[in-house]
Amino acid sequence: MTAPTSSNSANEDISVPPHNPAFVLHGIQDVRFEDRPLPEECGEDEAIVAPKATGICGSDSHYMCHGRIGDFVVNAPMILGHETAAVVVKVGKNVKNVKPGDRVALEPGKSCRVCSECKGGHYERCADMIFAATPPYDGTLAGRYILPADLCYKLPDGMSLEEGALLEPMSVGVQAVAKIGDMKPGANVVVFGAGPVGLLTAAVAKGLGARFVIAVDIQEDRLQFAKEKGLVHDIYVPSKPNQGEDKVDYQRRNAAEIRQKFGFEERGPQGVDLVVDCSGAEVCIATGVFLLRHGGTLVQVGMGKPDITLDMHTILTHELTLKGSFRYGPDVYRLALDLVARGAVNLSALISHRYPFAQAKEAFKANQSGKGDDGNGVIKIIIAGPTANDKF
Amino acid sequence: MTAPTSSNSANEDISVPPHNPAFVLHGIQDVRFEDRPLPEECGEDEAIVAPKATGICGSDSHYMCHGRIGDFVVNAPMILGHETAAVVVKVGKNVKNVKPGDRVALEPGKSCRVCSECKGGHYERCADMIFAATPPYDGTLAGRYILPADLCYKLPDGMSLEEGALLEPMSVGVQAVAKIGDMKPGANVVVFGAGPVGLLTAAVAKGLGARFVIAVDIQEDRLQFAKEKGLVHDIYVPSKPNQGEDKVDYQRRNAAEIRQKFGFEERGPQGVDLVVDCSGAEVCIATGVFLLRHGGTLVQVGMGKPDITLDMHTILTHELTLKGSFRYGPDVYRLALDLVARGAVNLSALISHRYPFAQAKEAFKANQSGKGDDGNGVIKIIIAGPTANDKF
Amino acid sequence: MTAPTSSNSANEDISVPPHNPAFVLHGIQDVRFEDRPLPEECGEDEAIVAPKATGICGSDSHYMCHGRIGDFVVNAPMILGHETAAVVVKVGKNVKNVKPGDRVALEPGKSCRVCSECKGGHYERCADMIFAATPPYDGTLAGRYILPADLCYKLPDGMSLEEGALLEPMSVGVQAVAKIGDMKPGANVVVFGAGPVGLLTAAVAKGLGARFVIAVDIQEDRLQFAKEKGLVHDIYVPSKPNQGEDKVDYQRRNAAEIRQKFGFEERGPQGVDLVVDCSGAEVCIATGVFLLRHGGTLVQVGMGKPDITLDMHTILTHELTLKGSFRYGPDVYRLALDLVARGAVNLSALISHRYPFAQAKEAFKANQSGKGDDGNGVIKIIIAGPTANDKF
Amino acid sequence: MTAPTSSNSANEDISVPPHNPAFVLHGIQDVRFEDRPLPEECGEDEAIVAPKATGICGSDSHYMCHGRIGDFVVNAPMILGHETAAVVVKVGKNVKNVKPGDRVALEPGKSCRVCSECKGGHYERCADMIFAATPPYDGTLAGRYILPADLCYKLPDGMSLEEGALLEPMSVGVQAVAKIGDMKPGANVVVFGAGPVGLLTAAVAKGLGARFVIAVDIQEDRLQFAKEKGLVHDIYVPSKPNQGEDKVDYQRRNAAEIRQKFGFEERGPQGVDLVVDCSGAEVCIATGVFLLRHGGTLVQVGMGKPDITLDMHTILTHELTLKGSFRYGPDVYRLALDLVARGAVNLSALISHRYPFAQAKEAFKANQSGKGDDGNGVIKIIIAGPTANDKF
Repeated sequence: MTAPTSSNSANEDISVPPHNPAFVLHGIQDVRFEDRPLPEECGEDEAIVAPKATGICGSDSHYMCHGRIGDFVVNAPMILGHETAAVVVKVGKNVKNVKPGDRVALEPGKSCRVCSECKGGHYERCADMIFAATPPYDGTLAGRYILPADLCYKLPDGMSLEEGALLEPMSVGVQAVAKIGDMKPGANVVVFGAGPVGLLTAAVAKGLGARFVIAVDIQEDRLQFAKEKGLVHDIYVPSKPNQGEDKVDYQRRNAAEIRQKFGFEERGPQGVDLVVDCSGAEVCIATGVFLLRHGGTLVQVGMGKPDITLDMHTILTHELTLKGSFRYGPDVYRLALDLVARGAVNLSALISHRYPFAQAKEAFKANQSGKGDDGNGVIKIIIAGPTANDKF
Repeated sequence: MTAPTSSNSANEDISVPPHNPAFVLHGIQDVRFEDRPLPEECGEDEAIVAPKATGICGSDSHYMCHGRIGDFVVNAPMILGHETAAVVVKVGKNVKNVKPGDRVALEPGKSCRVCSECKGGHYERCADMIFAATPPYDGTLAGRYILPADLCYKLPDGMSLEEGALLEPMSVGVQAVAKIGDMKPGANVVVFGAGPVGLLTAAVAKGLGARFVIAVDIQEDRLQFAKEKGLVHDIYVPSKPNQGEDKVDYQRRNAAEIRQKFGFEERGPQGVDLVVDCSGAEVCIATGVFLLRHGGTLVQVGMGKPDITLDMHTILTHELTLKGSFRYGPDVYRLALDLVARGAVNLSALISHRYPFAQAKEAFKANQSGKGDDGNGVIKIIIAGPTANDKF
Repeated sequence: MTAPTSSNSANEDISVPPHNPAFVLHGIQDVRFEDRPLPEECGEDEAIVAPKATGICGSDSHYMCHGRIGDFVVNAPMILGHETAAVVVKVGKNVKNVKPGDRVALEPGKSCRVCSECKGGHYERCADMIFAATPPYDGTLAGRYILPADLCYKLPDGMSLEEGALLEPMSVGVQAVAKIGDMKPGANVVVFGAGPVGLLTAAVAKGLGARFVIAVDIQEDRLQFAKEKGLVHDIYVPSKPNQGEDKVDYQRRNAAEIRQKFGFEERGPQGVDLVVDCSGAEVCIATGVFLLRHGGTLVQVGMGKPDITLDMHTILTHELTLKGSFRYGPDVYRLALDLVARGAVNLSALISHRYPFAQAKEAFKANQSGKGDDGNGVIKIIIAGPTANDKF
Repeated sequence: MTAPTSSNSANEDISVPPHNPAFVLHGIQDVRFEDRPLPEECGEDEAIVAPKATGICGSDSHYMCHGRIGDFVVNAPMILGHETAAVVVKVGKNVKNVKPGDRVALEPGKSCRVCSECKGGHYERCADMIFAATPPYDGTLAGRYILPADLCYKLPDGMSLEEGALLEPMSVGVQAVAKIGDMKPGANVVVFGAGPVGLLTAAVAKGLGARFVIAVDIQEDRLQFAKEKGLVHDIYVPSKPNQGEDKVDYQRRNAAEIRQKFGFEERGPQGVDLVVDCSGAEVCIATGVFLLRHGGTLVQVGMGKPDITLDMHTILTHELTLKGSFRYGPDVYRLALDLVARGAVNLSALISHRYPFAQAKEAFKANQSGKGDDGNGVIKIIIAGPTANDKF
């Protein structure tokens, strides 16, 4: 494991390994390095790329620990990884947007392009989506990956491959804030949950011009980190429930305390316009409902237990809107890349630890424990792509 | 009690009583007829009207039976009634839209006109709303009522005062379907709950050009009534839970059965675009979530218990939208009136029973029992305005 | 030429001719019948169809008379026709939505599916659109046509192939009214131009639930036809300019006269919400600007001369919106088909004349003269697909 | 005339003069100082304020030079001025948002609050608007002004009265960009016209989070000023027409040159999303139409000659949107104030010259000549409020 350094594309390894090692999940906690055949050809609209930097996502860990997420079950060996930047190795004859040698971020979901969702501008809802490292489809922790070339986004010179990899979780935040949440200029935004997606969602809201963005979590150190890095305007650690306090009373009290601390009103432009929940915790979502101004919007990004109890009287009488945000749709990756390129979001700030490909198991172990070998808390771990030495 | 007849403005009593009798709620189940002073003057932008037809709303009954609805408590005597049409008696000097003698529907909520909600086009969210028969404000079951003249809507010749009264609950449906739900042409709509608001909501969706509108309720007779009267395209009575069936499994099964019966798909234009819940029942709202197509919208109108448990995984991964709809905002009354005037909604079909003013207690009793003196089920009861004989 | 009859799918010829005759434009006024090779194979997502009914569009005539439309120039022989329904002959291995023998309407534009317009839900703006009978791409007046299968829309039993063909111009109206114009329920709509697209646009607005739809044209007989067929609520023939009357004064006067005749107000819900210009004439567009209520929308569909002079003071101070509508995007064909299927738009009413394939030249001649052999004015001409006898 | 200094509320004169001198327009070029009676009372929802800083707007100058703007004619003496901040002198009994002594910006338009435009959230379209210094209503260049208290916006401590005055022209930009233009995060924006409103509109777009904002004008010095002050990302001076060059060819060429210089594409996210014309010049508006990406929006703010010729083929085939933006509606002043308060827009940068009240004539003279007594070009002139010495 190397110490985190500032992102720097100048020193990046952009070599293409001569073979195709892969990090494969075979079953619960059973991951193996394997050599896969080198793909020689791709479709005329596709690109073959060599992944060079991959972030570990909660879903990768979850498949490793549980073998499934909801209805998605790992029934056959599956290569992990989907937060990835790469170097282009080869392109099909129709491809114009990238060429061999280009450093690119990979949008890891290939939709059908033909269904009403795809044609209607909502390909994230495509029933036939082929998504990297969602069973049964292989991910990107390998020497090669093939995808439609229009899902490769050329990185500008100042942007590192590691930043390119993190466009993936950042795009989840862009979808939630800009697309589903349709955040208006001057909005007041509260984000619940300070995991990587929560922090990126808050940073996106700030970068897109929100008036005031607050991150809420019970882990104060992550919030402090966010504030120091300039990802948010301010932070809030909720008070604990009083002894015997009713669950709903506690939610209402926390909402009132947040309003009071930051001067938010219950109605009008000084109220909370947008809550994005990236925690998945019922207490957060329910508190968000009480926190919003009348007419405000809550966007759900975090996935916790499925059954969530909310105060429908408040939703009704305050005319609230509650929306689910799933992955990301058209133009989101491009908007994320642009925000990073023009300095509106400091993406590299999130990288806490780096591991070479051969130490991918250690990287996942650190991610699951929440602590790196250096004893520091994990925010986001990047696994480098395989090199010529990584042959198994 | 008179037998229901077809609405007919020709025979309407439009006389103005020479005094001001009122139907006043003093406490739980304590309603009294009282003579109130005749108002002589109104503000320069106001109108004095003589109510002639008033529908009984669930909220009127609720205040009579329980003395409160949520935070709204009847602490002082309050005149009941807010679904009302009237004859204009006098207008202030600035008033141009109506004149004495005009038959008008009354929009019963007077907002402040100055707050950010009012100025922003959402006066239904005004914190200072003065709403008829919501404590502490008197309602319309009286000989006179004073309101801003712009809240008086002149009835066209062919529209009865009774229909004018029912524009109030109908406006709740218009707000839910056209404003909050933003129903698109060709939408497939499912309305849960076949009370007056549910039936009117379904009829509004149909009248506004929905492709297919289905009403769902466990009371089959009300559904049959709706189908016979042409208020909906089709109806559905949910199957009962199987013994030991999990609550969520039951909701999912019902959603699947509705989809199957009517050929609704899970995605795309053959799916359910809009669910409006007018039942307030958790089982309906939760089933609605499973029923919607990906990207669909659920609008909450019905008010049951406050804490409602929903499947947040479905809301998230299907990118659903859930919105609360409260009363009605700008232009809604006008749109409701227009739909009735051009025959797109058959409003008078809902009137099941009629009572004179002096029998208002009997009318409320029938409303609470669900059955009129004629033994027929109550859909909507109309209480006539007081006449010269009603002096107490 | 056969006499128009009511559409009737029962008697339709759905035979598939054993060869591939085509109606080919070689140059200005130079059209020839030619035999083309029978295609044997199509792509795995494509369908081979046998066109059976094709409407003549203004663009077909324009290419025949002028050899070009704007930048689109006929430099090589091109088969004409794009308003077409057909019978499916063969499908690729991935195709599920249609099968051989199905009667289908053809959406005649194949977009790239990959550009930002296509992915973003606006494929009508795709720079790489392959559109039937727009140079250099062949059209549908032939024995066979190949297209992506998702652009084939299966016709329900009660809908004729001729109606299926007319979904094409009707879709132009659906795009203008429902998509670009975002017509709200209860809207007042004025359509300028009573050609086929104008009449269909008006009929679509009416079918989608507009409150009041008026067609305006100087050809009174076409307007009368529209009114008789129930395509519009009312019609208007503009008065002529007075001697020496200023152009803008004339436009303002006509707008005022339309407002007065139909009781439209300058502001608010009794005003004209939506103007759709299907004439392309400056006088109509400019009058539409003066006619709209404050905050209203004008959608431009008709293409006349390019340089149009409008009153920008009115656009500014009335906060008008002016939008261009081009062809049709996602879900439009489906919505058009649905409106016809449920009887909301009487599509077959527009068919004034029918010609067999072998008389395609006569059909075009009638279309250009505006009169059929029967001496009746042309509204829409349908050319039948080639039969086994049509070999050249 | 005093030299411009940085805005500084610490040294501000917030004294209330003991009388009511006014700067009154009697006819073309006929302005006089007059003493008006001191108002003692205001309505219960109103405030009496003492204006302390007023910007000169183009409309003030226009009324002085021409006696009219379109249908608005100065038929009686009228006090000029409407870009104003003031000190509150007295408030009515219902007023809570401000109190005597508060420094406030004045929103100078009082709408009726009752019409469908006001209730629907578009009070800028109110037919009964009472707007300061629009005939026949007096403006704010006086010792006192009375207005509804909700149109007084309390200035935060760090914001000067001069900045408060300039919220008025800035709000025109906020309406155009945020409300009418509905600018999306990451938008590319081109503003034509570098007068005060143009510069503020560009600064607003930048402050609200546009990706790239370019100002276009033929006056290079004003553009340089804008760039130096950080109001825009970049600037552009159009090339001149070539000899004999067709008007439309010239417009197309300029659009192409702007695209090329800044790398804008014709379609998609690298194109120009939003053009705001603040020049009113036909050449700018017409060039804007050619400049926009397909699907882009042009907002018209500048008012020049009424009859503007545009390329309707481009509007149609590119599916452009063209919208008029008039003054400002609900929540716009608040959003403008907030942008200044949080440093997103540098409002004081625009103030080029300052005059005391007694030199109001000189101020208007400088404004009309375009040059101050110091020989520097005028951007925005502020006239101080009258003091105790200003008695006429």
